[in-house]
Amino acid sequence: MCGIVGVVANTPVNQEIYDALTVLQHRGQDAAGIVTCEKGRLYQRKDNGMVKDVFRTRHMRDLHGVVGIGHVRYPTAGSSSSAEAQPFYVNSPYGIVMGHNGNLTNAEQLTKEIYEQDLRHLNTNSDSEVLLNVFAHELMKQKKLFIDAEDIFNAVRGVHKRAKGGYAAVGIIPSIGVFAFRDPFALRPIVVGKRVTEMGVDYMVASESVALDAAGYQLMRDLDPGEAVVIANEGLIQFEQCAAKPQLTPCIFEYVYFARPDSMIDGVSVYKSRLRMGEKLAYRIMKEFPDNDIDVVMPIPDTSRTSALELATILNKPYREGFIKNRYIGRTFIMPGQTLRKKSVRQKLNPVPLEFEGKNVLLVDDSIVRGTTSGEIVQMARDAGAKKVYFASAAPAVRFPYVYGIDMPSASELVANGRDTAQIAEFIGADRLFYQDLDDLVDAVGFGNKAIKEFDTSCFSGCYITGDITPEYLASIDSSRNDHAQAKKQQVAQESVGIHNGDSDED
Amino acid sequence: MCGIVGVVANTPVNQEIYDALTVLQHRGQDAAGIVTCEKGRLYQRKDNGMVKDVFRTRHMRDLHGVVGIGHVRYPTAGSSSSAEAQPFYVNSPYGIVMGHNGNLTNAEQLTKEIYEQDLRHLNTNSDSEVLLNVFAHELMKQKKLFIDAEDIFNAVRGVHKRAKGGYAAVGIIPSIGVFAFRDPFALRPIVVGKRVTEMGVDYMVASESVALDAAGYQLMRDLDPGEAVVIANEGLIQFEQCAAKPQLTPCIFEYVYFARPDSMIDGVSVYKSRLRMGEKLAYRIMKEFPDNDIDVVMPIPDTSRTSALELATILNKPYREGFIKNRYIGRTFIMPGQTLRKKSVRQKLNPVPLEFEGKNVLLVDDSIVRGTTSGEIVQMARDAGAKKVYFASAAPAVRFPYVYGIDMPSASELVANGRDTAQIAEFIGADRLFYQDLDDLVDAVGFGNKAIKEFDTSCFSGCYITGDITPEYLASIDSSRNDHAQAKKQQVAQESVGIHNGDSDED
Amino acid sequence: MCGIVGVVANTPVNQEIYDALTVLQHRGQDAAGIVTCEKGRLYQRKDNGMVKDVFRTRHMRDLHGVVGIGHVRYPTAGSSSSAEAQPFYVNSPYGIVMGHNGNLTNAEQLTKEIYEQDLRHLNTNSDSEVLLNVFAHELMKQKKLFIDAEDIFNAVRGVHKRAKGGYAAVGIIPSIGVFAFRDPFALRPIVVGKRVTEMGVDYMVASESVALDAAGYQLMRDLDPGEAVVIANEGLIQFEQCAAKPQLTPCIFEYVYFARPDSMIDGVSVYKSRLRMGEKLAYRIMKEFPDNDIDVVMPIPDTSRTSALELATILNKPYREGFIKNRYIGRTFIMPGQTLRKKSVRQKLNPVPLEFEGKNVLLVDDSIVRGTTSGEIVQMARDAGAKKVYFASAAPAVRFPYVYGIDMPSASELVANGRDTAQIAEFIGADRLFYQDLDDLVDAVGFGNKAIKEFDTSCFSGCYITGDITPEYLASIDSSRNDHAQAKKQQVAQESVGIHNGDSDED
Amino acid sequence: MCGIVGVVANTPVNQEIYDALTVLQHRGQDAAGIVTCEKGRLYQRKDNGMVKDVFRTRHMRDLHGVVGIGHVRYPTAGSSSSAEAQPFYVNSPYGIVMGHNGNLTNAEQLTKEIYEQDLRHLNTNSDSEVLLNVFAHELMKQKKLFIDAEDIFNAVRGVHKRAKGGYAAVGIIPSIGVFAFRDPFALRPIVVGKRVTEMGVDYMVASESVALDAAGYQLMRDLDPGEAVVIANEGLIQFEQCAAKPQLTPCIFEYVYFARPDSMIDGVSVYKSRLRMGEKLAYRIMKEFPDNDIDVVMPIPDTSRTSALELATILNKPYREGFIKNRYIGRTFIMPGQTLRKKSVRQKLNPVPLEFEGKNVLLVDDSIVRGTTSGEIVQMARDAGAKKVYFASAAPAVRFPYVYGIDMPSASELVANGRDTAQIAEFIGADRLFYQDLDDLVDAVGFGNKAIKEFDTSCFSGCYITGDITPEYLASIDSSRNDHAQAKKQQVAQESVGIHNGDSDED
Repeated sequence: MCGIVGVVANTPVNQEIYDALTVLQHRGQDAAGIVTCEKGRLYQRKDNGMVKDVFRTRHMRDLHGVVGIGHVRYPTAGSSSSAEAQPFYVNSPYGIVMGHNGNLTNAEQLTKEIYEQDLRHLNTNSDSEVLLNVFAHELMKQKKLFIDAEDIFNAVRGVHKRAKGGYAAVGIIPSIGVFAFRDPFALRPIVVGKRVTEMGVDYMVASESVALDAAGYQLMRDLDPGEAVVIANEGLIQFEQCAAKPQLTPCIFEYVYFARPDSMIDGVSVYKSRLRMGEKLAYRIMKEFPDNDIDVVMPIPDTSRTSALELATILNKPYREGFIKNRYIGRTFIMPGQTLRKKSVRQKLNPVPLEFEGKNVLLVDDSIVRGTTSGEIVQMARDAGAKKVYFASAAPAVRFPYVYGIDMPSASELVANGRDTAQIAEFIGADRLFYQDLDDLVDAVGFGNKAIKEFDTSCFSGCYITGDITPEYLASIDSSRNDHAQAKKQQVAQESVGIHNGDSDED
Repeated sequence: MCGIVGVVANTPVNQEIYDALTVLQHRGQDAAGIVTCEKGRLYQRKDNGMVKDVFRTRHMRDLHGVVGIGHVRYPTAGSSSSAEAQPFYVNSPYGIVMGHNGNLTNAEQLTKEIYEQDLRHLNTNSDSEVLLNVFAHELMKQKKLFIDAEDIFNAVRGVHKRAKGGYAAVGIIPSIGVFAFRDPFALRPIVVGKRVTEMGVDYMVASESVALDAAGYQLMRDLDPGEAVVIANEGLIQFEQCAAKPQLTPCIFEYVYFARPDSMIDGVSVYKSRLRMGEKLAYRIMKEFPDNDIDVVMPIPDTSRTSALELATILNKPYREGFIKNRYIGRTFIMPGQTLRKKSVRQKLNPVPLEFEGKNVLLVDDSIVRGTTSGEIVQMARDAGAKKVYFASAAPAVRFPYVYGIDMPSASELVANGRDTAQIAEFIGADRLFYQDLDDLVDAVGFGNKAIKEFDTSCFSGCYITGDITPEYLASIDSSRNDHAQAKKQQVAQESVGIHNGDSDED
Repeated sequence: MCGIVGVVANTPVNQEIYDALTVLQHRGQDAAGIVTCEKGRLYQRKDNGMVKDVFRTRHMRDLHGVVGIGHVRYPTAGSSSSAEAQPFYVNSPYGIVMGHNGNLTNAEQLTKEIYEQDLRHLNTNSDSEVLLNVFAHELMKQKKLFIDAEDIFNAVRGVHKRAKGGYAAVGIIPSIGVFAFRDPFALRPIVVGKRVTEMGVDYMVASESVALDAAGYQLMRDLDPGEAVVIANEGLIQFEQCAAKPQLTPCIFEYVYFARPDSMIDGVSVYKSRLRMGEKLAYRIMKEFPDNDIDVVMPIPDTSRTSALELATILNKPYREGFIKNRYIGRTFIMPGQTLRKKSVRQKLNPVPLEFEGKNVLLVDDSIVRGTTSGEIVQMARDAGAKKVYFASAAPAVRFPYVYGIDMPSASELVANGRDTAQIAEFIGADRLFYQDLDDLVDAVGFGNKAIKEFDTSCFSGCYITGDITPEYLASIDSSRNDHAQAKKQQVAQESVGIHNGDSDED
Repeated sequence: MCGIVGVVANTPVNQEIYDALTVLQHRGQDAAGIVTCEKGRLYQRKDNGMVKDVFRTRHMRDLHGVVGIGHVRYPTAGSSSSAEAQPFYVNSPYGIVMGHNGNLTNAEQLTKEIYEQDLRHLNTNSDSEVLLNVFAHELMKQKKLFIDAEDIFNAVRGVHKRAKGGYAAVGIIPSIGVFAFRDPFALRPIVVGKRVTEMGVDYMVASESVALDAAGYQLMRDLDPGEAVVIANEGLIQFEQCAAKPQLTPCIFEYVYFARPDSMIDGVSVYKSRLRMGEKLAYRIMKEFPDNDIDVVMPIPDTSRTSALELATILNKPYREGFIKNRYIGRTFIMPGQTLRKKSVRQKLNPVPLEFEGKNVLLVDDSIVRGTTSGEIVQMARDAGAKKVYFASAAPAVRFPYVYGIDMPSASELVANGRDTAQIAEFIGADRLFYQDLDDLVDAVGFGNKAIKEFDTSCFSGCYITGDITPEYLASIDSSRNDHAQAKKQQVAQESVGIHNGDSDED
């Protein structure tokens, strides 16, 4: 999962993109990048790290222009390299930079095609480089010296035919402006906003509507599945449907966990959807455990606070924030001659013991993935004096790998893989465990926009909306994750070839 | 307000102090420093910045030893310089390093004495350098080649006689170990913890008990007012009361705002005290506004969440988190030829519009200081669609400057200065404003520990517990704050003289 | 003038290329870059600055592989941007990186062609990016999936047909290995060396033979004019003549000033050629000034030491090093409120006054360009007590701009432009001035290798060996140099787009 | 050996001290530091590294004031720590900063006294910290609130009584200005210069006169042995003899090797003295080897060029620079999995083979210490084709350790220890070896100033001028050098305690 943003404005965009990336920082904290364009020349700064660490005054000063894009990166399952920051660049044709959020499930096949058809070299493992080169190839095929928005839409049509998976992309072509497109299943979110100023109308595309809010843009709408938009340097905006069979089936996990609560995605308020998840879950608990002896309901901060509060209200139980999250996270240094101390969840959460002592607590989390963290938290609750510890998950059991852009463990690492609810409860040490029903989850989110007939719920249901996920592919992910672990040390250090990033450390 | 920590352990302390400073980061984000000691030699790393930015592997590697102290700094009213990180060092006598949390109200007088009596040069505006040199002088007076804990206690006795204000200090003398002391009014918090390991007993002193929790130390107790502790390098711990007339009157603002909710300070759970603030405030609102038309209660994150929730529960109104806090804060860059855009509270908070539309909302904050932020938030609520906006403060009106270590505005800058509640409501644009009663606040906190007969409530009551705050002093603060603003540009750049900090940027 | 190096070895090449660049540092101190290749992936580090500042351990660690190239950059007249370090990269076709030394005199025309024929975007002003893209286009034209050395030679043939000017280039194609080529007039130097090791034969190409010496390579030979070499990843080396009408006319200025004395270029020892320049100049002085009253001969360090010593020997006059060069050069900082002090030649040279007092001194320099430095030095000699100051230049008067890769002033800035020798002597304040004859210079250098029938002597003679330098071109250089001055501030700050350079400042 | 500078001027001194340190960089390249003073406050920047790397714009900006001192450090035998940059600071009494060049031979004894008499803690191994604290103690003893120049002179008198060894020191006391003093034997050089400007008279003290030249100061004179100078903030300069029995016996090694040729030290031109060394050595060779078959004389750059040239002239043999020095020195990186390649003298020198082939060469160096470098160079000459290789040293055989501030090997590491000339020639592989006579060396230098009756020639003669060097002391140096080697890894990393150095890496 990554965050993307693109702006065509009437004033310099460097600070605005920086601010938008800061707001989208929750979508990716591994790397950040901005490319701007002025007078046909592209200006870049990208590096591993948080937004506030990657960009210094000297970098911002050199990001010229009123047109630009930005990216924050989170490593995805298919693209194991943690060393390549986005956006990526190719100089042929026209000069194109692109950043994307999502995951291509046929990246390996495309890589082969790109080289064989086009002699294009890929220098990273990133499927964003693949996507860019597929797009570049589709654009090149038209062999025009001067291109317009329609040519870009045609190239996107070509991309949609060849690329499998979920993707929301944003890019720049210096002679045109900013373009963006969304996969035909609308798996990854992307919105468009406008801002009317004295100097003219500015446009922003972004992964989430919160990025628009922060910069004073009004949400126009989400891109439709398969749709593309071109915002010309001169300010003209054009939308076009580029997919043969678009279908609105957004990823339900955005609502469960990834998106910010104050975002609207495909017409649904993330915050409201989480309240409804709490409500549904409450009724389920009341049904399963009618004469419960729960003394207090506690969220595991931060995501589950919204649903836990509503859950407590419906259950008519006190709501207490028994775990305090450490806002400032440090590092564990490896010192010569010292053994590495394991940093556990205790570095991230601290209990307020008075809230636990002698009570039966119901802990609420947004979901349970590996189960190890949940287990540690249950133990912390007991150590803090809890009598009984119940556990509730606002999402159903995660039983299948996610392949469209969230770096989720492979099937074998999921606690729910091959375990029933009672066994999972035992694994995490809870006295009792409650999972949301998948239907309830779908209702909780879908209630916000009746136009969404279906969601991608693959990690709960095993039903992959793109219809092309084979057991072989899942197996390859599984093994690549393990290979990945092996290769990590080498990969992390990798610094790839390219055009000058210009980080002279000048005063 | 700053955070301090000191450790005498049986294994290297660098990582442990680093972790503790991370946990105490909320007490000061301007600067951070660690000094450790091994075989009579002191090792230091300090700089402006957050803990995670100040310490890199190369620094940690050079912080040798099983004895050390750490500091995170927040600029205080009396010490306007933002360029001197702590701890401070003097080489005479014995070599002493010290860091402190608090503010000396007679720093100017002491500075003069230090030079005249002792010919000691001070190279900063920091009252921590003053405190260290007073302590050094008192220790020197005893003219001993070999000192023990008793000599340190005598020096602390001398400090208590001369220094006015609030202070909790921690230091190292290489030949002795770690020492710490607390002012005779217990204005600033400091706790002592122990940890039994296979290698022996480790001790930690820290500003808040959360620092102990994170490292697995058990809270032994708070230092008494005026008390000092010496933890010898060899592990012996000795406590001693060093004040003539100690009196337990802790600063009530720690509970209202500054401390972490999961801390225990002087026997009172900060979290519980905030719940009780919400409860008291609810009853007050019910009394003042019996037939209220409040639709929803909303905290202004993060501090007020605890009291707002309890308040909503008592009022029997829905509790909603209508404002989402931006966890990642960026910078505003000053670009040549661009005008600086004002970063308002909107950079920090984003509303969830659906929660506001058409509703009468009661916003709850921990306190109101200048009133400008509150005003912006009220406006945001209205912009998001709120019909009526009520405002409640979990603390009483702040009408007087705070002089014991929190950098609070001078009287003239406080919105409550010379305004009654209705006028303040008008100033911040609220339809109605509710303040906590001071008695209720005192009850809410004091309920947790009946042994506390009195609190310092000076910023609410104007009653300064140390009894030596003159109108002249307050006036001097007022003008120095303005001078300070003037001098800021020069001061910020200031890099002071001293012994090598050793930040060679080697690989 | 830049320095280039390429290596195909049997052990990692990062340190070896680093060392070679250090040895070639005199050819360019503005920027440095290395690209290596392993298993089809390219690894890069480049930045503005000296070699020792650009490469840190973390960068070296990530330059994997036994194949690589390096570059040190000196800004050339035609390529005004001082912000783009080399090598450059294009991903299509095959992935190519390239660095070059020289200057293309038809870069503007080529830039246009590149875009129109190939839709290739150039993102800098560097003619190296132009050369790379011309090469890429010529290679692409052959439309092969698998290429071999012959395809590269064909592409070089295409480059030679289209590119005008002087150039020596080195590059990598991951699937092939390292390639290098030299312009058809052999204007820029490039040598090939081999080293036999237990693991096999290693090859290095470099701008000067000193780079080979330092790494233990034996000089095989210079590339012929127009010749190309391909050193396959597996170690096979292939040479091929790729120019229609190659002609060996090396740039004589390399011998006069630019190259290191311990280099052999096209069979001529630079050191020996300088001795002969001194000898020839001595005879000329003896002829022009038979009854001279010269007391002492002094070089202006460092380059002219060689010729000055021989000159003194022939003249039978004492040789003294009256000027000491400051080996360590600092910066002049611009402080707020302080005026910038002019850094003159006095920062670089310091006289030994005792050597000057009361004497008639003959100062010897390698050449005179603008005349301003010479004037300052003459004045320093007088200030140090010299009675008379004579001046001798080991090269003839520089009257024409140099267009093949040395950043020399435009005609209007040259002191010899429109002035005879007496007028120049007056301009620099010398009592008498002696210039080398051009024929003598040609003899001095050419004596070392009778196979060289002609040199490019354009800056002395105005005769441009490539035959295509028009008055219009010279005029455009003149104005672009001025434009350049205008644009400098913007350009210097420019950080160009591209693939990740990966300079995370991790510990 | 270190370099020091102090300035009291009428305009800001930061750039001026920076420039002076750059000029003195040859005296120490390990660390650099500047402290300035304005309005009673000291501003500091110091770190390991070269001058140009230690000071960035942000540091210079913060070095306020028209009074300041600077230091470049070279590790000395007695002070093994390579991590403490100078100047050092103590806050008691008055605030004093000091930097020094030299070595105290009774540092261990003084360290003990300092703690016992004064309870002063030393946190480094640097004898500069010792010297500063002795000075501080002597100043404190006078117990005055207000001090003047006479008090400083009294403190220097006390220092001279207690400190043994060679030292030239410069410091600041904020209330006074700059002071400097020289040891009673004048072992280390220090000069005073003045500059008359429109704003008044500026004064500079510095290790060598070249620092004065560069900044436009006129050399007033060297400090006499034992003399001190105080330059008040207001510009008044006062000199005073502070030693009981001063004696002018400067270190002859400054002339042989360490000082810049363009410096005047104690009235002797370093350049001239080296010419005379060459002359004397020539006559000695003519006498020892009357019918020599030397074909060519070659210096080993850079220091010996001066004497080698004169030597060649007297011998009437050609002088050739057969070795070219690499001006740019890189690093050897330690890569995981790669073995460290030994960097030999070949990284520093490159032969011009044509000059060696078939010839009998006489190599000239300034001195021979360990003999290993000389041996490598002799081998290089042979590899380059030399028939016979003779070697001449402009200084006599180095047989004894140097204890006054140059980091020379201990006796056991010196090649001349226990070997006669023939054996040394064999050790370095030379066909014949010529050493300067000590008397000739003394004459060569002393000729420049007849007032110098004696030099310290201890490393050649074993006669230590201070008369207090015991065999025990020499033995302790020997073992500490070995201990030092052991401890190096730990020490290098050491970052010492102290006051804030303020190197926030802000943009």
